[in-house]
Amino acid sequence: MEKESDALYIHNFTFDEIQIGDSARISHALTEEDVEIFAIMSGDVNPAHVDPEYAKTDIFHAVVAHGMWGASLISCVLGTRLPGPGAIYVSQSLNFIRPVLLGDIITAIVTVTKKIPNKSRLELACQCINQDNKEVISGIACVLAPTEKITRKRVALPKLILQHSTF
Amino acid sequence: MEKESDALYIHNFTFDEIQIGDSARISHALTEEDVEIFAIMSGDVNPAHVDPEYAKTDIFHAVVAHGMWGASLISCVLGTRLPGPGAIYVSQSLNFIRPVLLGDIITAIVTVTKKIPNKSRLELACQCINQDNKEVISGIACVLAPTEKITRKRVALPKLILQHSTF
Repeated sequence: MEKESDALYIHNFTFDEIQIGDSARISHALTEEDVEIFAIMSGDVNPAHVDPEYAKTDIFHAVVAHGMWGASLISCVLGTRLPGPGAIYVSQSLNFIRPVLLGDIITAIVTVTKKIPNKSRLELACQCINQDNKEVISGIACVLAPTEKITRKRVALPKLILQHSTF
Repeated sequence: MEKESDALYIHNFTFDEIQIGDSARISHALTEEDVEIFAIMSGDVNPAHVDPEYAKTDIFHAVVAHGMWGASLISCVLGTRLPGPGAIYVSQSLNFIRPVLLGDIITAIVTVTKKIPNKSRLELACQCINQDNKEVISGIACVLAPTEKITRKRVALPKLILQHSTF
């Protein structure tokens, strides 16, 4: 069953509520600003991501997203949709299959594949696909699912502004 | 051998230059702004990361970093230090061992463990440790190492400003 989200409140699904086959997803279109923010945040200023002139000469012939940007969308689904708050991230494997280019619409999907009652452990198949339905990332997540229902008002986050130098 | 970095230029190490045992690292002290930026960038507004009042009641009793924040430091070392530009990220495994709290100084270290000449493939042991030398993340990365030397001037990135609402 596809797990839905709420605009005002963030809530979770407990181990008992979750069934094998349950899934959740989010989609995001990659912008140049996303790539810049990831580079500043992580310190990863590899020119494949932030130097368009270099990127043209590189294997993918264009600026590509950091692999971990797609991975952060998977983590977002686990932390906010399924299971959501109260889940504890145990492990994640990631296979980077195809590059993500500016403008690509990436959908991160997680699907419950195993329920292990010891410590309310879940295994989830994870993938990011692009607008052409091509897989860009695949992997497996292991989380400890929450055992208690949690509903919290979403916190208003500050606004991120990128200030380009005028020189 | 510990691989060094340069403030003005970003350069790589080719497959032939890299030896088993070579390593590189970066360190970063986690601030509240880092966590907010990661939440905005990824969409992961799990209250464990952005709602201090909720976080007090949660298993770690304080705001914790997103697991993928530590992973992004590992990716930064691979993309900017070892091998650096021209490397292609194939896969990454991540075990989230301990939480990262505000103020923790996290060092991401990658160490070459295998050289596989087919496609210039490298395996690297990855870890993030905190200021108490405790492991917070462990994992294994697989990358295709560059075969040509690359040196590029570092790109000046825009400044990130967090604008908090005045209401």
